[in-house]
Amino acid sequence: MSQFMDVHHGMKGITADQLQQAHQADLAIESEEGVHFEKAWADPQSGTVYCLSEAPSAEAVQRVHERAGHRADEVHPVPLTV
Amino acid sequence: MSQFMDVHHGMKGITADQLQQAHQADLAIESEEGVHFEKAWADPQSGTVYCLSEAPSAEAVQRVHERAGHRADEVHPVPLTV
Repeated sequence: MSQFMDVHHGMKGITADQLQQAHQADLAIESEEGVHFEKAWADPQSGTVYCLSEAPSAEAVQRVHERAGHRADEVHPVPLTV
Repeated sequence: MSQFMDVHHGMKGITADQLQQAHQADLAIESEEGVHFEKAWADPQSGTVYCLSEAPSAEAVQRVHERAGHRADEVHPVPLTV
């Protein structure tokens, strides 16, 4: 298992409720792909959402997001943390 | 105080030591700008670094990074978290 940071663009005006619903949609199916979404942060002004996850691969992260209806624009492994 | 996510590009090949040193350089002066850097994640392959902070403004976040010698390419307020 590794940590990943994925990024969604084009989410201008996202609300707290919408972020919560999108996160819940991920959580509902994540175990089927061996993924766990730990945290998400959103900037409604620029329309950027960052999601931090533990997963077996970037592809697994993307599969959960795709199945939940919100494909990520970038998925980066983040093996270094401080 | 608000939360911010800032992003550095062009950091290909960054090592754990370099990330630690950069973070320490921020921590050493952050209080002068009222900022606290909570966490950072790095992807050496794409050369992307994400930093999460608590700060009075995006400008204060950037001032710490500039004074520490590593200006951020993007600084986003992230008022929504889940």
